[in-house]
Amino acid sequence: MTSFQVTSQDLEAIAIGGAFLGTGGGGDPYIGKLMAQSVMAEKGPVTVISPDEVADDWLCVPVCMMGAPTVMVEKLPNGSEAASALAQLESFLGRKADALVCIEAGGLNSTIPFAVASATGLPLIDGDGMGRAFPELQMVSFTMHGIAATPMVLADDKGNSSVINAISNLWTERLARCQTVEMGGAALVALYPMSGAQVKQGILRHTISLIREIGETIAGERWAHRNPTEALVSRLKGRRLFAGRVVDIDRRTVGGFARGRATFKGMDAYEGQSFQVDFQNEFLVCRNGEGRLLATTPDLICALDADGGLPVTTEQLRYGLAVTVIGLPCDSQWRTPHGLELVGPHYFGYQHDYIAFEELA
Amino acid sequence: MTSFQVTSQDLEAIAIGGAFLGTGGGGDPYIGKLMAQSVMAEKGPVTVISPDEVADDWLCVPVCMMGAPTVMVEKLPNGSEAASALAQLESFLGRKADALVCIEAGGLNSTIPFAVASATGLPLIDGDGMGRAFPELQMVSFTMHGIAATPMVLADDKGNSSVINAISNLWTERLARCQTVEMGGAALVALYPMSGAQVKQGILRHTISLIREIGETIAGERWAHRNPTEALVSRLKGRRLFAGRVVDIDRRTVGGFARGRATFKGMDAYEGQSFQVDFQNEFLVCRNGEGRLLATTPDLICALDADGGLPVTTEQLRYGLAVTVIGLPCDSQWRTPHGLELVGPHYFGYQHDYIAFEELA
Repeated sequence: MTSFQVTSQDLEAIAIGGAFLGTGGGGDPYIGKLMAQSVMAEKGPVTVISPDEVADDWLCVPVCMMGAPTVMVEKLPNGSEAASALAQLESFLGRKADALVCIEAGGLNSTIPFAVASATGLPLIDGDGMGRAFPELQMVSFTMHGIAATPMVLADDKGNSSVINAISNLWTERLARCQTVEMGGAALVALYPMSGAQVKQGILRHTISLIREIGETIAGERWAHRNPTEALVSRLKGRRLFAGRVVDIDRRTVGGFARGRATFKGMDAYEGQSFQVDFQNEFLVCRNGEGRLLATTPDLICALDADGGLPVTTEQLRYGLAVTVIGLPCDSQWRTPHGLELVGPHYFGYQHDYIAFEELA
Repeated sequence: MTSFQVTSQDLEAIAIGGAFLGTGGGGDPYIGKLMAQSVMAEKGPVTVISPDEVADDWLCVPVCMMGAPTVMVEKLPNGSEAASALAQLESFLGRKADALVCIEAGGLNSTIPFAVASATGLPLIDGDGMGRAFPELQMVSFTMHGIAATPMVLADDKGNSSVINAISNLWTERLARCQTVEMGGAALVALYPMSGAQVKQGILRHTISLIREIGETIAGERWAHRNPTEALVSRLKGRRLFAGRVVDIDRRTVGGFARGRATFKGMDAYEGQSFQVDFQNEFLVCRNGEGRLLATTPDLICALDADGGLPVTTEQLRYGLAVTVIGLPCDSQWRTPHGLELVGPHYFGYQHDYIAFEELA
């Protein structure tokens, strides 16, 4: 795997693939795509490099948006905040970044780094810290590899910012989340400053390539007037969980998160059944009407519009929308005891233990 | 007015005077006194200098505790957090402080700076930013003189910290308050880094001397078995508002503040009447049972234990406690339009306009 260029045109596929792996959350990548395309129109394409090409002594920095997706889509970043967060972190560290990193391979945060990479001319490393999207900042492979989230910089659209230094990544999440809420529900952040050696150890590899490929698959199937479900399930070793229409959606923005539950009435092969999907920014748990578990965090629960075949985020769920919901196995790191402690069902307040998606078939 | 030494013994009077000008809030200065005395036992006395002795190019830094007094008295600072907040601010600014400043002449924050001054060997400037205590960090004379609260450092007892840079002092308050809550309800902070020239322009002068004098007056009257009310009213051009017993106290710690209302049944000359005092950390508004205003923020409302004559803070109010409540005129800066915008009744959500304490007699 070697480096490749990502142009404004390539972002179309990356935004779609990012929305899919965003598992309902991470914010609509359409906004990040517009941000990145606007910057690229002026500053040119972005070079994506393999983790293997990163020198051990490089300073590598993830840059992303933090907050409730419901807010992010109404409070568009003006583009300069993310670069400002990076610049302030560089200033605090007294050193320039050598490469950028995606914190999550999903949603808005799979496209925002392209905007910053284009603006700064820095390469973006092919990989991320989640292999999907998760709602809280400590939920990354970097935490499992002992990499500190701090110093972390938050910057808002008004010109406010802060630098956090915390004793753990969970404390960083707490201290950053409350400021994100205060800043209006969303902030641009630069965090987990790490060496190239740490990147090579901690990153989930080649997930940028993966979301581009997913986006191209979805676009290709749509072009051929096919729903992309079969192709995606086959490519990603996933399984269709159900197809259904939204009959109820309970949603609130609380504690800086978009939380809620969507209830679906089965359709086609699932006629007569019902299904529930819980979310905290991202889809967390899917059950059928009898309460049987169909998929649970950290495995991926992804929704596609049953008609158009495009990924659906939680804020797009509305009464009557027909969706196909697909389950995918998560990265194997998340299935370790440390991984489950960070992102397993218990962390999110559920009583059930994690059962691998494959065993729930 | 020239410099003078403050010893561990002098802190007894300063703590009492600070509790009085703390207008019910700012936290029980007893804790700050213990902190300061413990440091002084090892590091020696503190030099208090007049603002006139400060060189224009000095870096002067207020260091204080921020949070709900109800929390502060249960979550004792270990002494190193305040010094840590100062050290981190110095590191951020790339420059050592030349002198310390009291943010408020009241409560815990009139004694904590002595602990830091003794530990660092820095002089403390005779004055403060409020001439009393107020609940929010933008409520200082420094704001009226256009001095920025940021960069501001918060540090907690666990080792977490943050550096805030905000576009206004009100934004600094918002971003710091939410982290203070997250840090457990209280944090040690270093803020309003300013030049000696700015200190001379913005500080309310000689209020450290004043609280020492008030403390000595209270101690002297108590020594002579007299209630200090008459002596204080005479010295500070104040007025006794009422004497009464607490018959009801509604108190909650919300949004990082101790808020509530105390109701009193008049006694002695006030027999048959009732009184109410509202507070947000500090006493804000005093009315009699018919709703007539007796004193309102920013004028000072101070309570003394009717028996012992010592100042009473809001967290010490309890059913049956007999108090004498005294009103004092605030510093004239608070009575300007800008002052009233910062700390007048409207800011705290009251409908009534400010009426000077003297006119309410």
